[in-house]
Amino acid sequence: MTDLLESLRRELGDIVDCSPETLETARADRSGHRSAERPLAVVHARTVDDVQRTMRFASRTGTPVVVRGAGTGLAGAANAGPGELVLSTALMTGILEVRADDLIAVVEPGILNGDLNAQLAAHGLWWAPDPASRDISTVGGNIATGAGGLLCAKYGVVHDAVLGIDLVLADGRMLRLGHRTVKGVTGLDLTSLVIGSEGRLGVVVGATLKLRRLAQGAICTITAMFPTVRDAAAGAAAVTAAGVQPAIMELMDAASLAAVHALLALPSPAPHAAQLTIQTDGPAAREEAAVIGRVLEAAGGVVAITDDPAEGERLLQVRRAMHPAMASLGTTLIEDVAVPRSAMPAMFDEIARIERQHGVSIPTVAHAGDGNLHPNFIFDGDEVPAHIWAAADELFRAAIRLGGTLTGEHGIGMLKSRWLAEELGDDQWQLQRDIVRVFDPQGILNPGKVFLGA
Amino acid sequence: MTDLLESLRRELGDIVDCSPETLETARADRSGHRSAERPLAVVHARTVDDVQRTMRFASRTGTPVVVRGAGTGLAGAANAGPGELVLSTALMTGILEVRADDLIAVVEPGILNGDLNAQLAAHGLWWAPDPASRDISTVGGNIATGAGGLLCAKYGVVHDAVLGIDLVLADGRMLRLGHRTVKGVTGLDLTSLVIGSEGRLGVVVGATLKLRRLAQGAICTITAMFPTVRDAAAGAAAVTAAGVQPAIMELMDAASLAAVHALLALPSPAPHAAQLTIQTDGPAAREEAAVIGRVLEAAGGVVAITDDPAEGERLLQVRRAMHPAMASLGTTLIEDVAVPRSAMPAMFDEIARIERQHGVSIPTVAHAGDGNLHPNFIFDGDEVPAHIWAAADELFRAAIRLGGTLTGEHGIGMLKSRWLAEELGDDQWQLQRDIVRVFDPQGILNPGKVFLGA
Repeated sequence: MTDLLESLRRELGDIVDCSPETLETARADRSGHRSAERPLAVVHARTVDDVQRTMRFASRTGTPVVVRGAGTGLAGAANAGPGELVLSTALMTGILEVRADDLIAVVEPGILNGDLNAQLAAHGLWWAPDPASRDISTVGGNIATGAGGLLCAKYGVVHDAVLGIDLVLADGRMLRLGHRTVKGVTGLDLTSLVIGSEGRLGVVVGATLKLRRLAQGAICTITAMFPTVRDAAAGAAAVTAAGVQPAIMELMDAASLAAVHALLALPSPAPHAAQLTIQTDGPAAREEAAVIGRVLEAAGGVVAITDDPAEGERLLQVRRAMHPAMASLGTTLIEDVAVPRSAMPAMFDEIARIERQHGVSIPTVAHAGDGNLHPNFIFDGDEVPAHIWAAADELFRAAIRLGGTLTGEHGIGMLKSRWLAEELGDDQWQLQRDIVRVFDPQGILNPGKVFLGA
Repeated sequence: MTDLLESLRRELGDIVDCSPETLETARADRSGHRSAERPLAVVHARTVDDVQRTMRFASRTGTPVVVRGAGTGLAGAANAGPGELVLSTALMTGILEVRADDLIAVVEPGILNGDLNAQLAAHGLWWAPDPASRDISTVGGNIATGAGGLLCAKYGVVHDAVLGIDLVLADGRMLRLGHRTVKGVTGLDLTSLVIGSEGRLGVVVGATLKLRRLAQGAICTITAMFPTVRDAAAGAAAVTAAGVQPAIMELMDAASLAAVHALLALPSPAPHAAQLTIQTDGPAAREEAAVIGRVLEAAGGVVAITDDPAEGERLLQVRRAMHPAMASLGTTLIEDVAVPRSAMPAMFDEIARIERQHGVSIPTVAHAGDGNLHPNFIFDGDEVPAHIWAAADELFRAAIRLGGTLTGEHGIGMLKSRWLAEELGDDQWQLQRDIVRVFDPQGILNPGKVFLGA
């Protein structure tokens, strides 16, 4: 091991970091999961060449590599353990090109989503994917997980917002995938294949992003209180069915709302009350907000509408405080199932059933415009206890049974690899596994993640 | 050969068709290219089971299979030759499910895009991809080619409008790829990998489509005449740069315009004059049309605007008559390069240079909102003459040099496989080839298409 490290240092110099704090940090992301032991070393790549040299070294020595950005993942995909080398792209933060006329930007993987958007705003542009972690998560990490966020129903996910990726393979060669054009069907769409591949196919060292112009017009914010979460879910479904397209439509159940109100020192909400927070934007923002208000009142909601952006942001802060509110209660396993929008009320019924049967509380928020639910399990310590996994297992099966999926935007990582074959089927699981092997014949990139035991 | 056919008939019964007319039809698509000889037989699949039995037979006997929908492709990907079995999914035309609340439809591959949209309209819904061939091309074919169309800059391409695909593998097994939810990142995104794979990975036997609600509000149509095609291209770029988003923005150069006017018996346009035809829709259609009108006048255009939908459709007919107008002049090789939008004027300069240097006329239309150009080469007979290929070769290289791509929406098929490695690079070409082999180890699905000689 010492020989390996010495040889790595000889090859890469002082970008190799073995300090205990750095190694300790690389064991965990924000999933509540932590690897068994510290990894071997962290390489802080500053250039594509650093990445290529690291991968050539790893390839030659058969050393497993875990690629890591800001470590804000929620599925354990970037957690590194014993014998593993961490390749960090967090220092590769450049914006190489911004083209307002072509609505594209070319960036390095380590730039934070929020920093990128702050710089794009000066050009009147933005990159739409907005995971809740946007101020602390990297574009490379957003790509590796196929991140979503709050604005997805109207403005799409990462999958819809990346035209090309520069990918360093396990053996150090670099491929330029995709294109700079709006349309392009030359060969297989490997750009899409890499999005959401959680570090199994290669190292993302650059990306050509598809931008939008900053929305013009008013931003209206609507809040609606409902007696129960089922009523709120039905209200959200009624908005979708009415044919208006909110930019944001967030649902908070009673337990979430109570926890956030406590954290923010706001008055306690009524027992069982659940809330929708909705924003409309663009040229028809006011008309759409008025339609949504009427739909929600008809669905039994108590509705308030504002077109003051500052007041709207204040209302959204309640939703954005969800993660800290959960963290204040204990270690959190944030789940991430997605179901067809019409199945949201049924999914909330399932969650209530699982709460009753397992004697656990599962505070849940949802991106109600796209059917993506984040049920939260709270526990003590670093390891998810068995009884929590038993409840989560039922939750996953319920989502799949309702036509849904294990993960809407967080990924499989380590935490859900046990359930992957259940959703994909054994044949597809094996085929996906074989595709990974085409990119990485030695199996040195993030081994064991996503594909359990492989 | 006769043994093989007898054994196929024994296995599949009367869905095996060896009539000379059927076999003759299967030799060609609409690319102007035709295979050397007739294929072995055409299997008219009516069910998924028919497809699976056909593939098991092909797999067992090592018989190459060309999957075919309506045969409207423009790159030769569905052209079948000697020794090949054609698997037609044209009779699998069912709509299995339409969910207005979830904005999805589940369909069989043989349904025509236009027929699907006619039926969806009754639900107030539509599937956005609108290739010019929409009335005669199948959804399965649209998926296999990753089709685009006129509305893509605003409403996206097939890539953006498919959530899941049921795929029969070369060995007859069926995989269910993707999901029914708006978001979903479970495992690798094989749905996207299949879109645009031109029959090399498997047989698309079903698809879960992402729908939109029919646009509300006015539809405004703007036409603008410019002295030259370069001025028109600059006008289109100015519209994009102004931050308005037309639903459609089509450019016709002088030669295209003259040919269509002749076909439709309209008065001849001025020499060198080029035209933009633009539509806006949605709640801000009128305001956006007014902005576009001012931008185009400032760019030197002679502008007319109407909010009468019938008049708008009449104006668009000029653009839609492009294919028949070209066909009236001879056999047409319709090219399909895409460049970043800012490079469109430069690409028209390159086309003018190639016309001069090669002594050919290249009437060109463009989806100007997304930088996708369709230069047309006209010739006599079935085979593209060498001097046309020489000019096309320069056209491809010019597009790649300008940051563009070989094909925006038609695919590689047989016609562009010679240039594929030039755009992908040898390493990526080989990797893509190896991925094909994971799906189809024997290499019986559409051999030689896309990947030259493989």
